[in-house]
Parts: sequence; C-alpha cells; structure tokens
Amino acid sequence: MASSVIERLRQDRAAHLEELSAFLKIPSISSISEHKEDIRAAAEWLKQAFLQAKMEKVEIIETKKHPIVYAEWLDAGPEAKTILIYGHYDVQPVDPLHLWETEPFEPTVRDGKLYARGASDDKGQVFMHLKAVQTMLEVEGTLPFNVKFLIEGEEEIGSPNLDEFVANEKERLAADVLLISDTTMLEAGKPAICSGLRGIAALEIRVKGAKGDLHSGLYGGAVQNALHALVQLLASMRDENGKITIDGFYEGIEIPSAEEMESIKALGSGEEALKEELGVNELFGEKGYTARERTWIRPTLELNGVYGGFQGEGVKTVIPAEATAKITCRLVPGQDPIDILEKIEAHIQAHTPPGVTVTTERHDTGKPFVAPVTDPVFAACARAYEEVYQTEVAYTRMGGSIPVVETFDSQLHIPIVLMGFGLPSENFHAPNEHFHLENFDKGMETIVAFWNQYANR
Amino acid sequence: MASSVIERLRQDRAAHLEELSAFLKIPSISSISEHKEDIRAAAEWLKQAFLQAKMEKVEIIETKKHPIVYAEWLDAGPEAKTILIYGHYDVQPVDPLHLWETEPFEPTVRDGKLYARGASDDKGQVFMHLKAVQTMLEVEGTLPFNVKFLIEGEEEIGSPNLDEFVANEKERLAADVLLISDTTMLEAGKPAICSGLRGIAALEIRVKGAKGDLHSGLYGGAVQNALHALVQLLASMRDENGKITIDGFYEGIEIPSAEEMESIKALGSGEEALKEELGVNELFGEKGYTARERTWIRPTLELNGVYGGFQGEGVKTVIPAEATAKITCRLVPGQDPIDILEKIEAHIQAHTPPGVTVTTERHDTGKPFVAPVTDPVFAACARAYEEVYQTEVAYTRMGGSIPVVETFDSQLHIPIVLMGFGLPSENFHAPNEHFHLENFDKGMETIVAFWNQYANR
Repeated sequence: MASSVIERLRQDRAAHLEELSAFLKIPSISSISEHKEDIRAAAEWLKQAFLQAKMEKVEIIETKKHPIVYAEWLDAGPEAKTILIYGHYDVQPVDPLHLWETEPFEPTVRDGKLYARGASDDKGQVFMHLKAVQTMLEVEGTLPFNVKFLIEGEEEIGSPNLDEFVANEKERLAADVLLISDTTMLEAGKPAICSGLRGIAALEIRVKGAKGDLHSGLYGGAVQNALHALVQLLASMRDENGKITIDGFYEGIEIPSAEEMESIKALGSGEEALKEELGVNELFGEKGYTARERTWIRPTLELNGVYGGFQGEGVKTVIPAEATAKITCRLVPGQDPIDILEKIEAHIQAHTPPGVTVTTERHDTGKPFVAPVTDPVFAACARAYEEVYQTEVAYTRMGGSIPVVETFDSQLHIPIVLMGFGLPSENFHAPNEHFHLENFDKGMETIVAFWNQYANR
Repeated sequence: MASSVIERLRQDRAAHLEELSAFLKIPSISSISEHKEDIRAAAEWLKQAFLQAKMEKVEIIETKKHPIVYAEWLDAGPEAKTILIYGHYDVQPVDPLHLWETEPFEPTVRDGKLYARGASDDKGQVFMHLKAVQTMLEVEGTLPFNVKFLIEGEEEIGSPNLDEFVANEKERLAADVLLISDTTMLEAGKPAICSGLRGIAALEIRVKGAKGDLHSGLYGGAVQNALHALVQLLASMRDENGKITIDGFYEGIEIPSAEEMESIKALGSGEEALKEELGVNELFGEKGYTARERTWIRPTLELNGVYGGFQGEGVKTVIPAEATAKITCRLVPGQDPIDILEKIEAHIQAHTPPGVTVTTERHDTGKPFVAPVTDPVFAACARAYEEVYQTEVAYTRMGGSIPVVETFDSQLHIPIVLMGFGLPSENFHAPNEHFHLENFDKGMETIVAFWNQYANR
C-alpha cells in the first residue's frame, strides 16, 4: 500500500535528513583535482547507501576520471517495467566562499530550507530516489518494477566519460523509462516536467602579448596590452542589443511549435518577480524576446570568468602579458556544440587585435534536448504530481544543460522524464545553495506515486 | 681628489654589493598592508646607513602611512651649494611570483646583473648616492657642498603624503638643485638626462549585476552579466587604432618644440630592437606616432587588471555578479589628472550598459613634468656623464611617472635633474627586475664627477 510507504517516509524524515547531511558533508567537487579523494568518498558513501537499501547489485565502476556508482534490483521479473534513474553525486566549486552564510559543506537547516553545496543540485534529489526505493522495499518487501541507478561523478565537468559508458553498456542500462531529477519546478508550489534542455559549448581563450609583464609608464603606448586586446575581442562577440555577433551563431535554430510558444506565453512573463529575485532594476538580453524565452528557447554566450594583471589592493602600474577568458554558450535545438565552437574560433581568428597571439581550449560540449511529451509515461508522471501537489503540472523548458540527457536520448531510445524538485531560486552553482524541505517531502511522495502509477497498480 | 674617491669606490665594491643586498632583502612593498613592518624595517636600515655615512642629522619622519627618511650634512657652510637628493625605498609587488627565476627578495648576481625587486627601482640607485657621499666624506674628510637626502616609502603608491610634507618643510628642503635617480638611460652605454615625465591618473571600476552569482543555464540570457558589461564598457574607451575615445581626452595637450621633436626623431625609431626585447611580432599603439613618441609625448589609458567570475581549473557555469577593472592613464603636459579622471567618470556614466551599476574609486594622480634644460646644472651633469661614459648624453623623456617631481617643481622652484642609471630592459614593476652592475659602478663615478663639477672644483 502506497499510503504505508508515505507514512513510513514521514516517520523517517529526521533520520533521512541526517543521512543526507552526511552525504552533503563530502566536498565532492569534480572540477578541482585536489578533491579527487572526496569524489571517491562520495561514491563509496553512495555504494554503502545502496547496499543498505537492499539493492542487489551495487558497483563502483571506474572511468578515466571519477567513478560511476551503479545499483540495480531486478526481482520484479522480466514482465515488469524497468525504471532507470540517473543523477550525479559531484558538485560545483564553492568560491567565492566569503559569500556563504554558513559553510558549504556544513549542511544547515534554516527556515525550512537545507543549505549546502549539492543540497538541490544534485545530491539531495539523488537521495530522494534512493530513499523512496529503500522505503518501498522495506515496507512492502518487494517492488512492482525493476529499478536501476546510474549515479555519476562528472556531471559538473560535462560528463566526459559517460558517453562511452552508455554506448558500451546499453544492455545493462536497458529500461522502459529514464528518470532524472536535476531540473527545477516552475516556482514554489508549481511542479513542472521539463520538456527541453539547452545544450552547452565551453571555450577558454588565452591572450598573450609581450614576453612578460611591462611597466605601464615605460612601455605604455608602445605595445598591445593583453587585457585590452582580450576585452576588445570579447566585446566584439555581442552587440548592444544582446545579440551574439559570432557569424552564423543563430543559423538553423528550430522554432518551437505555435502551441508550445502559446503555453510559454500563458505562464506569464514573471519578469517583475525575476527582477525582485535577482536584485536588479532591469533585465537584459537578446532584444525581441521575453526573459523566459531568452532562457528557454534562445541561445547565449556568457563570460564565466575573465582575468589578467593585478588583482590586489591598490594600484600596480603594469601592462599584463597574459589574459584569460572562460566562456560558455547555451544552445537550443538546431544548434550543434562543435559547430558553434568552430564558429567562435573562426570569429577569434578574424578579430584578434594586432600585437597579441590568441589560443583556445575547448571544454565541455553537450547537445540540446527535447522530450517526447506525448508518451503515456508523461501523463502518469503528471498525475502523480497533481495528486501530491494538488495543482496542474507545467511543461517547461530549462535553460540549463544536462549533456548526458542527449546521450541517453540518442543511445537508449527510451522516454526521458525530467522531474525536478529544485526551485529556480535555490542558488545552484552559486553561494548559499539550498533545497526547500517542502519539496524534499512532497518530492518523495510524488516519486512513490509516479512509480506506482507507472507500474500499473 | 676625485681620483682617490673613485679608487676607494672601486676597492669597496664587494662590500657595497653586500650592503645593498641586505637592503634589497627587505620586502618593503608599500601597496600591500601586510608589508607595513617591512617598510618600517627598510626605513630603519636606511637610517643606520646614513648614520654610518656620517650624516649629521638623520631622522625617520612619520606620515599618515609609511615614514620618510631624512638625512643632511651642512658643514660646507651657507656659501656652498646645497644638493637635495630624492629617492624611494619602497618597491612594487612581486606577483606573478612563479615567473621569477630567483626569489625577488634573495638578491642574486648573474651575468653582471643584480637580480632583486628594487635592484634598479629604486633602492639600488638610492644606495649609489648614499655610498658616493659616504666615500667622499671618508676619503676627503669633508664635502665641497651641503647635502640633504629625502627618501620616501610611498613612491610606488603615488606618494600620498609627500605633497603635504614638501609644502610644510620648504625651509628644511631648501637647496640649489634636486637630484633624482629613478629614470633610465637611453640604452646600454648611452646615458640620458630625462627632461620630461608623464603624469598619472588611476581609477578602479567596479560593476555589480545581480545580487549574487547565477547559474548560466537557468538565468543565461535573462540578466546582464557583470563581466560582459565591464568588457563592453572598457572596450568603449579605445578604438581599433589605439586612440582613446574618452571625450576630451587629448584636449589641451602641448606639442613639444620642433627642436625637441627633431631630437626625438634623431634617436631613431628603435622599433626593431623593442620588438625583439618584448618578444612581439608587432608593436601597437595610437596610430600616427612612433612607439617612442607614443611612450614619451602621448598619453595612454591602460588596463592594469581585470577580474571577475571563475578563475580556477576547468569550467564553472556561472554568471558573475561582480567584475572589477583597474586602469591607469599616463598623461603629458597640458593634461591634468583630476580633469582626466572626471572625463573617464563621465564616459562611464554615459556608457554604462543596462542592468548593472558601476562605481569608481580614484587612486593615484600625478601631474606631468618638463625640465628647464637650459639651466647650467644640466651642462655640469652632462659633462660628468661624458667624462665617465665617454659618449654624448641624450636628453630624453620618460613614459613613466614620478608624481612628486611635479610637486617639487611647483613647491621648491629649483632645477630638477633626473639622472637615472637603470636600463629600459631591467623589468621594473615586473618579474626578474635587475640592475646592470656596469651602471652601478659607472653611475657612482658619474655622481662624484657631477658633484665636483657642480661645486666648482
């Protein structure tokens, strides 16, 4: 009976939060080499948690970098549905640390929210699926479906080794549906199924001028300043209307159906609330689109980091010899990340200012994704949400990227349901990341309801 | 007899280098608060050195920040000439530290050059005057002139307290001539008297966007990126021909005399050698001027530091909420630093991109300077150089700024002789600063010769 499962989930809430805190305390930052052992510790923590949940096969699978944790329970038999759950146990870096109100790896509950790096993205949401399965098994002694967990440690660095794993392990991963909880609800109280994700393409740009830093008095005026050249190059990539000026950047973009455009408009602009949330007087972006359209169905080119020269207190009269920029583009259906990187590289070639050399390094890439929302699994999911949240579920797109979604889509050919329980305001990737415990609670109930619906009970 | 002084200088060379090394070992970086005690230690070291040189009045004079060291010997009497010597014992920061071949505060001699932060700018050159006086006094028992030393600890941060000191202590500083060795020769073997310095005006620009860093997927496209706004703002300050586009920036600039322009041209372009020295394929700067003209008689606006967002290894998909730029302008006669700062601030006001707020903080300012080269003291100095270096001295301008020169000029109304012994290639303000010992040796002999000439012996 689902209701006894729900009851048990409510009874165990305090114990669950304690367990989740232990998971969140591990600083499993995948992009920083010195956290390699923490990544390993998080994988080990998950392995033990899956064993405790009575999963029948639990493995830490090595990759070229950070391991995958795999777990399965297949006793429902070949006739039953098989649910594959994907998530990630790695987290983003935490700087600037001074902006955190409490330590990023010391989970703290304040005002019904759990603050910690990874609370929402994605350890918290992985943990919900894990505990939902464990509780069902403990209460009912069995499951009406087979379940497989694939939890990776490289999502925040673009999942460099997962593509290969998925391509090689199609049999192991065979399932009827893939569930991922790494997206957000529309807003508090309004659940959403995400029907589309933007792709990503990341590039690092390094400008080199003179062979060393120079005195800005003795040499100022004679020689190109690497920082100035970089600034000029970066400025050439966007016009004052927010349009990206890389040649061919918008080429081939697929326009969403009139129906989807209507449903996006029906959600309202939300721009006043967004300004309030972000603390700005004015939003800004590609002219001719609303903020929602700009984040859901239009591509971007963002500067994630720029640095060169003196950063200390006061003045240093130096002409920097080197300057660096890190940029990422978010891509929409019709755009290909490698093609976009090539176009940016061509732009850099054509616009390199005199007196410097520019080199580039490609980082993460991921293709955009659109979900097959007419498949019945989406209706089952929507009913579960509506049962628990007592409101209609929205079909949204998300501006973020989960590059592996496109991999799963093209390799496994099964419906992918993006059922996220985060809120857009929860500071993913930023200081003070948190997770609303209301959605931790309701989320687990929704997951249980969905599984039961889907398994035809 | 000057020749016995010279002999003694040559005998004492090793001891002098050892003493100078002790001075250079003190990391007296004036711009970084944690070096406050090192600044104090360098002042104390100088005080002891002046006492040992038999100066009759030696004082450490407190200011609001770093102290001034003052020393005098006035036994030549009121009829004799009085020489005032200015220099500084503070040094520039040393980052990026990894580019130094040997530690910046572990003086090392390689290939006839002394490597250390401050070796040339300006501890080494202050030390030369100190030892020249000491040696003359020791060898001859007296001096044919009165001498006053004013050595400050705030030159590298724009001498914020020296103006007030000079204005209040005109009597103490009364002299017939002011000597400063903090400029460069034209090149190896070619001494120069510097007849002009550029002024300086420094500004820090801070851009603030949303109230915190944001996920570049979820928010990318909706909101202004502080780094992108800063890049756009900075790019608007210079055109592709290297012209500064701040409204009125070039207004009122005094064109040097036809004679001086001729003599600048006569020195040759030196551009091939400069490209070689700097390791660039191409020089760059304001169109229509040679590199020498651009550094000597034209103003600049340089980016000394720009930073915001993620600087670590790999990728962080963040929209930075803050971005900072540090800029300095070098100014030429006819430009006023406060007026230039106001013009830049007005430009920023007029060009602030939507969706961000920009604040500015003014740092150092210093007016440009031109020397009265027809005064006989310049001829005496030129003869001394020619005697020791066996070549004609060049009258040059310097692109750098010594803001106090303008203060001395307007307060003391005495000729200022800028007789520097550094070479343009000696990496002032950069990693691997060094000083050619040839000019350490010949420089002290030139100083002694000049003093004797000037005192009419």
